[in-house]
Amino acid sequence: SNIFILAADLVVQLSPAPKSKPAEVDFGSVFTDHMLTVEWSLTEGWQAPLIRPFGNLSLHPACSSLHYGIQLFEGLKVYRGDDGRLRLFRPTLNMKRMASSAKRACLPAFDQSELLECIRRLVEIEQDWVPHSNSASLYIRPTFIGTEPSLGVKKPARALLYVILCQAGSYFDTKNEAVSLWADPKYTRAWKGGSGDCKMGGNYGCSLFAQYEAEDYGCQQVLWLYGDDQQITEAGTMNIFLHWINEDGEEELATPPLDGIILPGVTRQSILDITREWNEFLVSERYLTMAQLCSALRQQRVREMFGSGTAAMICPIGHIFYQGEITSRLAKELTDIQVGARTHARTQKTEVNDVSR
Amino acid sequence: SNIFILAADLVVQLSPAPKSKPAEVDFGSVFTDHMLTVEWSLTEGWQAPLIRPFGNLSLHPACSSLHYGIQLFEGLKVYRGDDGRLRLFRPTLNMKRMASSAKRACLPAFDQSELLECIRRLVEIEQDWVPHSNSASLYIRPTFIGTEPSLGVKKPARALLYVILCQAGSYFDTKNEAVSLWADPKYTRAWKGGSGDCKMGGNYGCSLFAQYEAEDYGCQQVLWLYGDDQQITEAGTMNIFLHWINEDGEEELATPPLDGIILPGVTRQSILDITREWNEFLVSERYLTMAQLCSALRQQRVREMFGSGTAAMICPIGHIFYQGEITSRLAKELTDIQVGARTHARTQKTEVNDVSR
Repeated sequence: SNIFILAADLVVQLSPAPKSKPAEVDFGSVFTDHMLTVEWSLTEGWQAPLIRPFGNLSLHPACSSLHYGIQLFEGLKVYRGDDGRLRLFRPTLNMKRMASSAKRACLPAFDQSELLECIRRLVEIEQDWVPHSNSASLYIRPTFIGTEPSLGVKKPARALLYVILCQAGSYFDTKNEAVSLWADPKYTRAWKGGSGDCKMGGNYGCSLFAQYEAEDYGCQQVLWLYGDDQQITEAGTMNIFLHWINEDGEEELATPPLDGIILPGVTRQSILDITREWNEFLVSERYLTMAQLCSALRQQRVREMFGSGTAAMICPIGHIFYQGEITSRLAKELTDIQVGARTHARTQKTEVNDVSR
Repeated sequence: SNIFILAADLVVQLSPAPKSKPAEVDFGSVFTDHMLTVEWSLTEGWQAPLIRPFGNLSLHPACSSLHYGIQLFEGLKVYRGDDGRLRLFRPTLNMKRMASSAKRACLPAFDQSELLECIRRLVEIEQDWVPHSNSASLYIRPTFIGTEPSLGVKKPARALLYVILCQAGSYFDTKNEAVSLWADPKYTRAWKGGSGDCKMGGNYGCSLFAQYEAEDYGCQQVLWLYGDDQQITEAGTMNIFLHWINEDGEEELATPPLDGIILPGVTRQSILDITREWNEFLVSERYLTMAQLCSALRQQRVREMFGSGTAAMICPIGHIFYQGEITSRLAKELTDIQVGARTHARTQKTEVNDVSR
């Protein structure tokens, strides 16, 4: 039995009927012609990876991914550069996080570099789907689910790892608009001793209800608070950054620390890496409470606030609806867009992963 | 478009090749010949319910149940009585909880009594699968999943409600054995502002890792603690009860209150209903901390402790592994079995739901 996924064993079955590429698409609804699937079982280990025509999965109705949330995913993008080459953005960070989520979900271990090589092969086959644009990209969604056909609550003895691809439209379209956040301590995204630092499905399904309550209040996303001191943790499905003059009068870019309830975002890490390289202001992973933010807003010490994530990249925050009123219209909504653009370009230079060989 | 599931529209497609019934089975791995499926979409509402041969589901690889844990389930049992009649145990409580989970998961509403009627029809068709035994039963697993083929984190515009059935072996086989619990505050099952009071998949997938750590310590289940005062909340996938002489010297049967982090178990509610009817000791929904339990154990004030749930019914607790040592061997391990048996018989009398008409 194979204890590793082996890219050398990859079998490719090309689609006899490739689709035409749509001009403009909503994120996450039009998929490419092929997908990667790798099956695992306790008795036989990893099967040969297979690139095959995109299509539905046939799943037993009792499988553990549908009943007990034994599932996880990743999200990363491939860009077409001005030089025509395709680049994955820091994919080793995604592989590492995927391995960490798999351990937490009691799904089997896999060889990260072998899986990445299989993904590279899939992207290579689908390269015509990568938009000819600096602002759009092809989104890669690795997914890993338990498929054992049993209702016992236990480690699955069968699992399926698969990767699908879809076009991600230009994020510049909506990027100028600052989002409004709804901050109410009555919902919690993640908690100490839970799985909020992993990309497991349950973290998202559980968050949806609050998202619609935010919309009922006229806001676009939830500002997730935690604990009695109402720590600021994440915004919607993004990490959060505050650029401010802190309590000690220092200019600081701050984001909550990875203490178990924060998703270790690749964009988050990239922003920290780059701004530390700039060495222009203090860059901190530290706790931030609503009381501290409100005080800073009153004293006009807030420069900007933004969310970060693979899908939105950098998302400026304009309003926070808190304790029944709009707390503030944050200043300099647009600065972060430039930060985002610079951040992104720089990070690509520091770690590129060419798809073409 | 149908805003309700309508049992009158039920379409039945009988299996041409029914399976032979196995003599003895593991829980949750052998399913009956048919399943109930009901499809829903935002544009067309609920489709006609369909009873059809049991088989795999064909799911889009991007569907929200596999990525974002938009999924929930229920569990209830049908018993064959000495009079030959089939009875569902308090199914309206399961339908009510299922509706509550659906709301929390942003899945559509359904008519509880119409769904129950569809389930009754399914059980009627599969009645030969109900064991001819007082101690075994047929387990019913309603499941509700988001099926929209899109990676957007949003309310699904398509969903599938389905019901599968499997034999549940005699729980008396293992019932005499008291289980050992591993109590470590480092993992949390559920938290205020989360979805621990709903039967959503994410609650279970997230708990699995701790379960295996418990086994590494030689224990069978996790005793889930909560908060700085280490409140006792649940045991494994069961509610928990403590029968003791409380701090005020009163004989008390206590279980944690439904404050948002406790699953509102049907067996839990039945135990409360029946013991209150007995009127023999104080019956309380109250907080219980590890400190209170340890103190009571030292002073020999603990009569018994047990878990409750649909699968295990009543599960006596023998040991708790806490802070590096076996805290206690609990007394009177067997009493609760009798309590369970009496509880069960009484509750069936107070609410029966005959399958046969």
